[in-house]
Amino acid sequence: MPNVSTRGANAPSSPIRKLVPLADAARNAGRRVHHLNIGQPDLETPAVMRSALTDYAETVIAYGPSGGDAAFRDVLFSYYAALGVSLEPQQLIVTTGASEAVHVALATCLDHGDELLVPDPMYANYLGYGGVLGNRIRPIPTSVETGYHLPDALDQYVTPKTKAILLCNPANPTGAVYSEAEVQRILDLCVEHDLFIIADEVYREFVYDGEVCRSILTYPAARERAIVVDSLSKRFSLCGARIGCFVTNNDAIAAAAMKLAQARLSPPALAQVVAARADQLPADYFATVKAEYRLRRDTVFEALNAMDGVTVHRPEGAFYQMARLPVDDSEAFVRYMLTEFQRDGDTVMLAPAAGFYAAPGAGRDEVRIAYVLEQSKLAHAMWLVGEALSEYNR
Amino acid sequence: MPNVSTRGANAPSSPIRKLVPLADAARNAGRRVHHLNIGQPDLETPAVMRSALTDYAETVIAYGPSGGDAAFRDVLFSYYAALGVSLEPQQLIVTTGASEAVHVALATCLDHGDELLVPDPMYANYLGYGGVLGNRIRPIPTSVETGYHLPDALDQYVTPKTKAILLCNPANPTGAVYSEAEVQRILDLCVEHDLFIIADEVYREFVYDGEVCRSILTYPAARERAIVVDSLSKRFSLCGARIGCFVTNNDAIAAAAMKLAQARLSPPALAQVVAARADQLPADYFATVKAEYRLRRDTVFEALNAMDGVTVHRPEGAFYQMARLPVDDSEAFVRYMLTEFQRDGDTVMLAPAAGFYAAPGAGRDEVRIAYVLEQSKLAHAMWLVGEALSEYNR
Repeated sequence: MPNVSTRGANAPSSPIRKLVPLADAARNAGRRVHHLNIGQPDLETPAVMRSALTDYAETVIAYGPSGGDAAFRDVLFSYYAALGVSLEPQQLIVTTGASEAVHVALATCLDHGDELLVPDPMYANYLGYGGVLGNRIRPIPTSVETGYHLPDALDQYVTPKTKAILLCNPANPTGAVYSEAEVQRILDLCVEHDLFIIADEVYREFVYDGEVCRSILTYPAARERAIVVDSLSKRFSLCGARIGCFVTNNDAIAAAAMKLAQARLSPPALAQVVAARADQLPADYFATVKAEYRLRRDTVFEALNAMDGVTVHRPEGAFYQMARLPVDDSEAFVRYMLTEFQRDGDTVMLAPAAGFYAAPGAGRDEVRIAYVLEQSKLAHAMWLVGEALSEYNR
Repeated sequence: MPNVSTRGANAPSSPIRKLVPLADAARNAGRRVHHLNIGQPDLETPAVMRSALTDYAETVIAYGPSGGDAAFRDVLFSYYAALGVSLEPQQLIVTTGASEAVHVALATCLDHGDELLVPDPMYANYLGYGGVLGNRIRPIPTSVETGYHLPDALDQYVTPKTKAILLCNPANPTGAVYSEAEVQRILDLCVEHDLFIIADEVYREFVYDGEVCRSILTYPAARERAIVVDSLSKRFSLCGARIGCFVTNNDAIAAAAMKLAQARLSPPALAQVVAARADQLPADYFATVKAEYRLRRDTVFEALNAMDGVTVHRPEGAFYQMARLPVDDSEAFVRYMLTEFQRDGDTVMLAPAAGFYAAPGAGRDEVRIAYVLEQSKLAHAMWLVGEALSEYNR
């Protein structure tokens, strides 16, 4: 029998999803599992967006344009214009979530064997796509002590094979929001070494301390060097719809991306109909969402910060909290919480952080916590984590 | 500025979509364009499936399991069981159309540099995915004279780098339905050279002359060697939903495929809700659909067969008709139809066939016609093609 491909065999397991069978087993055994492992907000998808489904009147759910349906594209162009980003029609392609946009960005910017520079830890899925496409990911190390911000010297991480830098800003899994000075340093590096910058900006609105996280496309030095991967999943609690976009002012990249988009025909039609209602949300929609997540962030951070032996840095954005725990192997601890630990039938699922690191062996004592539940549940979940840590280390 | 990747720059344009701007211009100029270029059926998505949208009651459109939602998976397992295919739960993964399933099949069966054998002409998107993944596609030549069936000697096309054969059955774009003897010859070749067989069976039900097109998974020799890529797009007029599946009895391939599925989180939620209603269709649903397409096939075939200088073979399945036209360059002819030709404001868009061939220079005098309009419109469209050919060759 022929062997599975090496790229298939070596594909990383998702640190977010690989322990899901243990959570299922815990639930089947009658326990309640609070899910802080996955960035699935509990906030409702806005009703005005969901009502697009009730209103859906097409009799044929047909292929659409490969770049996306006109109505949804109009909404996106207006949204980007309000961010200060002006785009030609061919410079935006609707994608099946940011996932597809990341894939297209790597495929059009890098050839097989080219390398991608990414601050470490990183959104684990970059590792998955890099592996399939033959692109080694070189980590730029960061740590909790500096709030996962960039180290001083970046040049040392560039190799002759480096073709692009990927910056997730605000960052998943660290919650770092890179300062304008940090972004400018990244851009200087890109100019000096002639690199693309791929910017994952899906958490753009989720910044909590008065900062504004400008799109990379508003930096003059990024023009024609930058590709933005974007998603509506987090912004509008639309994770399951699978809808996002790929944006660049570089027309050669846009043209190549369109050919890849044609190969998969069109993005999901129903998701686009829902997403096109984004322009009907009240003006204070994001302010309300941000206030809610700021409260949650503070709840999680303060609780962890008060625990013996736990090291945390207050996240500036996104909705994740990294935490260094007083354990040798955070995956073993997460397994313990799912298989042995409980308080009144309750337990918590976290994401072991090692899978978010490209550097071998890094992050083994860290976890990622997604603060995607309401505050009272989060407070309870944090109490459970504290109890579990005490019991585990007894 | 860094250069677009070679794999991006060299990605093929879709032969189905690249002339769409000319069709748009014709429409904007007030002409009516009959679209026979794309396999988008005019048949309604069954009302019982669309009603799932009205009934949708979730308040959060959330990520689902990477392998697909339980309700839709149940429908698929029952469907495959009725085909005589028994599957373990981990052996089926719901995908974003057959497009994603093809990508996952190539990524898990082949490494960069491995080769894929495919009867030529082929569904153009295989070429697109092969290019991005670094897999050269070796054509097995077929021609209209033999109804695009397989040549006698297949061994000569296998190279030391061949890792898999892809068989689309019933075939897009040729309409060939491979006989059981042909399938057995392919399987013998796979056993002899230790190859995977990737079977694209999205047109499984669309066979018109009493043949049954058995799934490759019902052949004992295919077990653990076969991967089926499937889609509901054609079967239920669900093209825009983007929903399909990846099926294999090979657990190593299934495990690798699941890791890639996790990297993109989950398939589209709304599409799955619609698709899960497939089990509520009347028992004669496919019989009705088949009768309609058989009529259309005969209309298109007879009309083309009666035209001077046109060579056609009656398709046995799918809903495409290849035709060799009395022109040097079918793309120029298609452009002519979109830019110059008209009868009472009407014209037709066809797909130039060269883009469906992996062999350089092949198919330049051929077109692919998708018979996806009702019979009277098809008859009119065929008359327009005849008029256009006469005028073009005058």
